[in-house]
Amino acid sequence: MAANRSSWMNEDLDALRELARAFMNKELVPNIDKYREQHHVDRDLWNKAGEVGLLCLSIPEEYGGGGGTFAHEAVLMEEQARAVDTSWGVSLHNGIVAHYLLAYGTEEQKQQWLPRMASGEVVGAIAMTEPGTGSDLQSVKAKAIRDGDDYVINGSKTFITNGAQADLIILVAKTDPTQGAAGVSLILVEADRAGFRRGRVLDKIGQKGQDTSELFFEDVRVPVSNLLGTKEGQGFVQLMQQLPQERLIVAMGAVAGMEVALEHTLRYTKEREAFGRPVFGFQNTKFKLAEVATEARIARVFIDDCVEKHIRGELDIPTVAMAKWWTTDRAMQVADTCLQLFGGYGYMNEYPIARMWVDNRVQLIYAGTNEIMKEIIARSL
Amino acid sequence: MAANRSSWMNEDLDALRELARAFMNKELVPNIDKYREQHHVDRDLWNKAGEVGLLCLSIPEEYGGGGGTFAHEAVLMEEQARAVDTSWGVSLHNGIVAHYLLAYGTEEQKQQWLPRMASGEVVGAIAMTEPGTGSDLQSVKAKAIRDGDDYVINGSKTFITNGAQADLIILVAKTDPTQGAAGVSLILVEADRAGFRRGRVLDKIGQKGQDTSELFFEDVRVPVSNLLGTKEGQGFVQLMQQLPQERLIVAMGAVAGMEVALEHTLRYTKEREAFGRPVFGFQNTKFKLAEVATEARIARVFIDDCVEKHIRGELDIPTVAMAKWWTTDRAMQVADTCLQLFGGYGYMNEYPIARMWVDNRVQLIYAGTNEIMKEIIARSL
Amino acid sequence: MAANRSSWMNEDLDALRELARAFMNKELVPNIDKYREQHHVDRDLWNKAGEVGLLCLSIPEEYGGGGGTFAHEAVLMEEQARAVDTSWGVSLHNGIVAHYLLAYGTEEQKQQWLPRMASGEVVGAIAMTEPGTGSDLQSVKAKAIRDGDDYVINGSKTFITNGAQADLIILVAKTDPTQGAAGVSLILVEADRAGFRRGRVLDKIGQKGQDTSELFFEDVRVPVSNLLGTKEGQGFVQLMQQLPQERLIVAMGAVAGMEVALEHTLRYTKEREAFGRPVFGFQNTKFKLAEVATEARIARVFIDDCVEKHIRGELDIPTVAMAKWWTTDRAMQVADTCLQLFGGYGYMNEYPIARMWVDNRVQLIYAGTNEIMKEIIARSL
Amino acid sequence: MAANRSSWMNEDLDALRELARAFMNKELVPNIDKYREQHHVDRDLWNKAGEVGLLCLSIPEEYGGGGGTFAHEAVLMEEQARAVDTSWGVSLHNGIVAHYLLAYGTEEQKQQWLPRMASGEVVGAIAMTEPGTGSDLQSVKAKAIRDGDDYVINGSKTFITNGAQADLIILVAKTDPTQGAAGVSLILVEADRAGFRRGRVLDKIGQKGQDTSELFFEDVRVPVSNLLGTKEGQGFVQLMQQLPQERLIVAMGAVAGMEVALEHTLRYTKEREAFGRPVFGFQNTKFKLAEVATEARIARVFIDDCVEKHIRGELDIPTVAMAKWWTTDRAMQVADTCLQLFGGYGYMNEYPIARMWVDNRVQLIYAGTNEIMKEIIARSL
Repeated sequence: MAANRSSWMNEDLDALRELARAFMNKELVPNIDKYREQHHVDRDLWNKAGEVGLLCLSIPEEYGGGGGTFAHEAVLMEEQARAVDTSWGVSLHNGIVAHYLLAYGTEEQKQQWLPRMASGEVVGAIAMTEPGTGSDLQSVKAKAIRDGDDYVINGSKTFITNGAQADLIILVAKTDPTQGAAGVSLILVEADRAGFRRGRVLDKIGQKGQDTSELFFEDVRVPVSNLLGTKEGQGFVQLMQQLPQERLIVAMGAVAGMEVALEHTLRYTKEREAFGRPVFGFQNTKFKLAEVATEARIARVFIDDCVEKHIRGELDIPTVAMAKWWTTDRAMQVADTCLQLFGGYGYMNEYPIARMWVDNRVQLIYAGTNEIMKEIIARSL
Repeated sequence: MAANRSSWMNEDLDALRELARAFMNKELVPNIDKYREQHHVDRDLWNKAGEVGLLCLSIPEEYGGGGGTFAHEAVLMEEQARAVDTSWGVSLHNGIVAHYLLAYGTEEQKQQWLPRMASGEVVGAIAMTEPGTGSDLQSVKAKAIRDGDDYVINGSKTFITNGAQADLIILVAKTDPTQGAAGVSLILVEADRAGFRRGRVLDKIGQKGQDTSELFFEDVRVPVSNLLGTKEGQGFVQLMQQLPQERLIVAMGAVAGMEVALEHTLRYTKEREAFGRPVFGFQNTKFKLAEVATEARIARVFIDDCVEKHIRGELDIPTVAMAKWWTTDRAMQVADTCLQLFGGYGYMNEYPIARMWVDNRVQLIYAGTNEIMKEIIARSL
Repeated sequence: MAANRSSWMNEDLDALRELARAFMNKELVPNIDKYREQHHVDRDLWNKAGEVGLLCLSIPEEYGGGGGTFAHEAVLMEEQARAVDTSWGVSLHNGIVAHYLLAYGTEEQKQQWLPRMASGEVVGAIAMTEPGTGSDLQSVKAKAIRDGDDYVINGSKTFITNGAQADLIILVAKTDPTQGAAGVSLILVEADRAGFRRGRVLDKIGQKGQDTSELFFEDVRVPVSNLLGTKEGQGFVQLMQQLPQERLIVAMGAVAGMEVALEHTLRYTKEREAFGRPVFGFQNTKFKLAEVATEARIARVFIDDCVEKHIRGELDIPTVAMAKWWTTDRAMQVADTCLQLFGGYGYMNEYPIARMWVDNRVQLIYAGTNEIMKEIIARSL
Repeated sequence: MAANRSSWMNEDLDALRELARAFMNKELVPNIDKYREQHHVDRDLWNKAGEVGLLCLSIPEEYGGGGGTFAHEAVLMEEQARAVDTSWGVSLHNGIVAHYLLAYGTEEQKQQWLPRMASGEVVGAIAMTEPGTGSDLQSVKAKAIRDGDDYVINGSKTFITNGAQADLIILVAKTDPTQGAAGVSLILVEADRAGFRRGRVLDKIGQKGQDTSELFFEDVRVPVSNLLGTKEGQGFVQLMQQLPQERLIVAMGAVAGMEVALEHTLRYTKEREAFGRPVFGFQNTKFKLAEVATEARIARVFIDDCVEKHIRGELDIPTVAMAKWWTTDRAMQVADTCLQLFGGYGYMNEYPIARMWVDNRVQLIYAGTNEIMKEIIARSL
């Protein structure tokens, strides 16, 4: 069965893929163990990526970006998946944080931040979730109260990807705590502001190289010009508009992960012998991998269709919710099926399948739990 | 969420869809109960369909066909699914039997049979499975032994769709019983040949309107010119080449069935109340239907991709095996989930969901069991 | 692996089993096709069963019963499952209707009805579900309004097992329609009362021999002495008290069905060859049947524990809800897995597995849908 | 729903449970983080456990043991599960290693080792799996070749529980490498023998506190009296006889784990709010936990039945294979369902559910993979 080439691929993207793969092999893969140990990537990985042009791929060139589309981000994600890395929060930086700035930032904000994000000088994060609120963004407790020409910010956030390294944080806070969704604004907070403090890197069961952190804001003052955009109370709408791309990113990672898991497992089961023949020789193995291959293929066709629609601006919210829950659910199942075929080695971190399995699990939770995705879909029926 | 229009649809196909829907509503739907009772459609349904041009849609006009592509057959199948009918074996007649003739028949055979199949004068069937052999086509026991200018045919077949009504049967038989696959040939057998006998219509749990039958051949003589094609021993290869289209037809029916099941269930759960609110108001209902809607959508995107590839001649065998097992498996699951939401009514034949559930089950078995599909996929990995 | 003997079996029950099995083989099995055709058992099956002592097994001897326990009913159900019959509504008659009378009937009511139910002179039914209310028994619309010394009954019921043959119906109706649960009473209605009418036997996808019917009550007058018990408004409580035994009966049938399905499938897959070896020789078959055997065994151990607790009066409502949903869910899955291993024959009514599959489906719905079971369990957590 | 007390519990075991729980709370729970960090328990945990009498619970008092039955081991396992600990390999030491000595050791071997294992002076391990052989014990490569009055041992083992701390290792080796199963013997190897070397503690994704290790044997000499028992070539039979108890231990841990996971999740979902109400208030949560509670209960009834049979010496090999695969499979599913209900916190090590999820996974693999369990069951059908 010939490998399928995504319909949205082209020669430009082939070149990018080659570049990305070389970068991963040189800069990322040899350091994954170290990153997992220290629970963050080396800071200069960002700068190196900026140098070769892998940051802000889908940001216009006028802001220092690559001038590409979502397809460019997709290629980068696929290559990161192939490297079996979850340490580097580049898809968040590239595909989410930069796009908030691009979509809602004032010209000044864009000029100020995007070129530095593209170079790797500035690492971005977005702080939504709070210890007490989970996915319920209308109920955030963090406050940014106007005081003269400043906002005074108080609150805490958790599960923040790039949390330990971020130089710029897009904070979801209430500028009007008397309101629900209508009181939510997004505020840019530089990490060197007084009163801002990073908590520990959270002790997760997986994604060990990711510096997912708690963030604390205690009377942090930022000028009112740090409001993302020009009008308070737009935060909830902005989040709703950007969440689809975030979820598509998660889905794309899940699909690429399925393909990589299949590849690793085919190789292993064909080499490894049990009871005198290759593990692949058993009908159970064949059937399981046929099922895995099928779901990986179907997921690929679906995600490619989503990517094309997204590039054309036609991807609707329920469809991306479908993509998010289904691909992450199946990716978890695929990893689980594959892990089992490795026997005891499937439980060892030195076998990538083991890390894929445990790393995948959080995909069913973040970017809106899969239960929330089903709510979104049901509302559209 | 806007309904998705298949990428392969066009205005010509829209017109066909309208025609097909009108035909189903007028000629088929009012008679389904009767067909289920008598275990076959009325013979003149074929003639009426021929008259309006619904037979042999994808056969060239020079042979009396519609001159369309697989997309035309797909539209017809979708409209039959919408009518919740499994009585009429038209997709076998149109999409399978006629295509064996088109692909391998001599010019004379094509001229002789295709126009009559297009008019409805002749109903086609293909006889592969035998009581003892199941899906193992290399081991068929039926024999067609050359005797002068005739073949003398002996054997029995079972599970033959259109079996009770077929005027022309493509028989899978060994012209050389000493060989395996290399001894298999396809022979055209007219139903009025002496020694040919139809068994009873099989008592199935579902697809009650389908005249699935046993067929018996006892010293049936046909002229050697009834060999499909010009060379003995090509049967196995011919089967292997045509099976993908047969499986794609099954998959297309499964996907269309999921969509119809969802539609029926949405309507029911929104109207029907339980414990003081619509059944749709319960989170369990919403989540189940969100899952159903997701799988129906993903299956649709996948099958549309398969249809496009098939029209372009690029659909490979493992991919169609994926489509066949996965869509029928999910269609069964979808029907099961939906049935449950109907409560006791889901078990009553007057509710189409009940028939969909029981009719769907055999899709996991025919056209090659889903287990065989997995074998095919595994061999390609 | 030695067959397991249920912990609650004893020699008395062994003798009953022998009797029951002989009766099934002589009177039931040879007639199943006929019963399925006519959609009801022959009326005299009840009388014959009464003669040999198989009716009202767990009703005290003073009322003509067998003086046994639930274990006696369990043996009868197991033997009916072994006969692969769902035509004969004996477990409802024996295990449910008679027990309402025994538990709540006045001495006069017990004397009047139980001996005739034990002899087969009277067939019993219970009428709960209504076209519009489903499982929500607090909202029944049927009314029994007191008028002098009579109740005047109006309403309609559906999905009534033994509906076409019942001589005595326990009707769930509101004696006080202004109330919810507190207005519900159980009323005995003899089938020869004026104004009572049976609808058609419902056209179900399975359980073809069962005379499940609609019942209509139009100004039916019964004397107030037909109130089950002596006090109005007790109906809901009575239902809640008896539903556990009804659900345990369903669960017991499901478990026995799993064992029978496994037995049939082992026999078939060991005899039937495919691709040159027994179907059982394939690893997929072995693994599937190992899974089936495991779930059948675990279900058996659980149901035996439930039976023992029930006989001791210690089976609580949430536990029986667990038994009901889980065993019916797994029995359906087991039948589905087994059917698939029969290939096309699994879809033919002459193979019992086909009927088991389609007959099983309604178990997930009746006696309280499996969703309601989960609600009951959740309330207890 | 009242908590169920296992049928095999008694007052003696209640006292043991109290002792075990107090010990866990005092000695184990406060140190779990430390153990996870250092990848082994503190060595003196064994001695402390020996002092209070928690080691060798089911070994006769004459050998220093507790004189109990498997029920005593079960209580200890349940209390360890309640403590959510997988660091301490006590069930292996108590339930497996000591029992090999008891069952097959010479009187001298028993006298020499069991009292010291009971006191905690000696920690036991058993070395079966090899890098290249997995579950195929007939093909072990490790050799113990007789040379005068010694065996000379060469080979390597992996995935050895208690590997880093064991003082005494029961080694599975070929005393006759020309034979298959008949050449296998069990040899006692003291950890201070020259040529014995421990590899690193394996870097697993879970069970972080367990010192699972590789072991290397290079020309290790032990006296022939270190043969377990008195006759070479008995090893395979001995393994087959002891594996059921090992698998029952795994199953017991799985069941206890389900109950603990449910308990933690009920507490969390009732306390935690989302969208303005407790997470438990959502129907999806209720249904998922109803399903979890059902499977936990059914698993408990089944395992209790197995325990009773095992104590009576009646537990057959296929039944324990059923218990092993099914309980570990469901425990994994239970942990997965529960984790999801914790949202992001379910991915954090400080929430026990996160560790349960990742720790559980290996249960489907060790003590014979679940695929091997299905093979064993299938052979018995």
